[in-house]
Amino acid sequence: MSVPGLSLNLATVRPQFGFAAAVDACLAQGVTAIAPWRDQVEAIGLAEAAKIVELNGLKVTGHCRGGMFPATDQAGLNAAIEDNKRAIDEAAALGADCLIMVVGGLPGSSKDIAAARGLVAEGLAAVLPYARACQVPLAIEPLHPMYAADRACVNTLEHALDLCDALGSGVGVAIDVYHTWWDPKIRPQIARAGRNGRILAHHICDWLVPTRDLLLDRGMMGDGVIDLKGLRADIEQAGFRGPQEVEIFSSENWWKRPGEEVIATCIERFRTVC
Amino acid sequence: MSVPGLSLNLATVRPQFGFAAAVDACLAQGVTAIAPWRDQVEAIGLAEAAKIVELNGLKVTGHCRGGMFPATDQAGLNAAIEDNKRAIDEAAALGADCLIMVVGGLPGSSKDIAAARGLVAEGLAAVLPYARACQVPLAIEPLHPMYAADRACVNTLEHALDLCDALGSGVGVAIDVYHTWWDPKIRPQIARAGRNGRILAHHICDWLVPTRDLLLDRGMMGDGVIDLKGLRADIEQAGFRGPQEVEIFSSENWWKRPGEEVIATCIERFRTVC
Repeated sequence: MSVPGLSLNLATVRPQFGFAAAVDACLAQGVTAIAPWRDQVEAIGLAEAAKIVELNGLKVTGHCRGGMFPATDQAGLNAAIEDNKRAIDEAAALGADCLIMVVGGLPGSSKDIAAARGLVAEGLAAVLPYARACQVPLAIEPLHPMYAADRACVNTLEHALDLCDALGSGVGVAIDVYHTWWDPKIRPQIARAGRNGRILAHHICDWLVPTRDLLLDRGMMGDGVIDLKGLRADIEQAGFRGPQEVEIFSSENWWKRPGEEVIATCIERFRTVC
Repeated sequence: MSVPGLSLNLATVRPQFGFAAAVDACLAQGVTAIAPWRDQVEAIGLAEAAKIVELNGLKVTGHCRGGMFPATDQAGLNAAIEDNKRAIDEAAALGADCLIMVVGGLPGSSKDIAAARGLVAEGLAAVLPYARACQVPLAIEPLHPMYAADRACVNTLEHALDLCDALGSGVGVAIDVYHTWWDPKIRPQIARAGRNGRILAHHICDWLVPTRDLLLDRGMMGDGVIDLKGLRADIEQAGFRGPQEVEIFSSENWWKRPGEEVIATCIERFRTVC
């Protein structure tokens, strides 16, 4: 039995499975779309990962991740730009729908978030021609504001879309409901993203109450407070018809359970609450 | 030696001091502005607290807190409205500059944040005539988006100012840099707040990297990444000249130190990094 419309971000089963085992476990339960992380691909080798994708006819909803541009000097920014080009190469080899861009936070001991945002814009502009040439769309992922300092200084869909407007073609957004559900402007901004053809990915999990860790306490769909069906309706209304990609970092719960159980639960919740 | 321009939110020394002892400790170091919490006032009694304020000529930069409107039924909302009127009475008795409004999150098991926001608007509108009659301005405090579910579903200054525009006179905003520093629209929204005469309070602390707890790991000014001087300049440029109010919840650090040391550190950092 296949599960159309569902993709598994392989971070969801990071401690349980390497790339090949994760793919096997997905296929065993009918999941035929995945999104790997660079270290997972590197561990098995890009050629082997691409072969597994091709032989199994997998859809790759995104490659995680590029970005992390802000640096304390030009050499650091240049290094990030070069590293992003390698990530684009990988995304192309895997046939990924997009390269996910977690843009980076404050460099060094900086307190100047406006300057960091300027470096993000500069870095994106620098890699975009290469991404276009490789036909790999760049998906800017606005991260929750609690990650503004250390992971991504683009924290609202509106800001991400403003960047897209400035950058032109070949760039769009990944809408992760964990990061954006709270935003009072999320609905009009989803509509704006759709009008401009910018929606490249739709990530799901849930916001737990209480949340015990800023990074590693994401919830399984249905266990939290996010209106998943409502946001899905908005995103589909805006024209995006790709799979919903489950991405759960959960050091104390889902990462401790058997990977098969995690995947089975994702499928069951995807069918009932998403 | 007095410390003009600095107010101490008494939650900063909550485990160390009750109301009277906190006031004594502040006065001993020249701090003559405070912001108490309702439970701290209740513990000593409103009349006694008001007497201490008056006899010492204290400035009360805010009374914490009203709000918490969303409820699962009308009776719950009505109870919240009545409770807010009592908080307004207290703020008036203390001569507070404003009543801080932490508006509340999702009621019960609701996932409908738009509905919760509607209840907030309804509750604010219901208490506002009473607040106006008592000459107690209501200060809507946008809280960081990580509190959207369980504390406050108003999470940006822009949203708070939209509410103010809809409500009319007698309501404004408390700008806490901990909650708002990440916002790409913070500078123009501070300017908007100033143009409309809406800035009622300016709260400070710092955002630590890493942040180990969503609620109780706020940093002392200078220990984190917030551009405190830059935001102060924006807020003063917008016309607000009241004290900066230090509000630090820190279960594993500042709440474990002697209260006198905490106050001394607040003063030193206020003079050097704010």
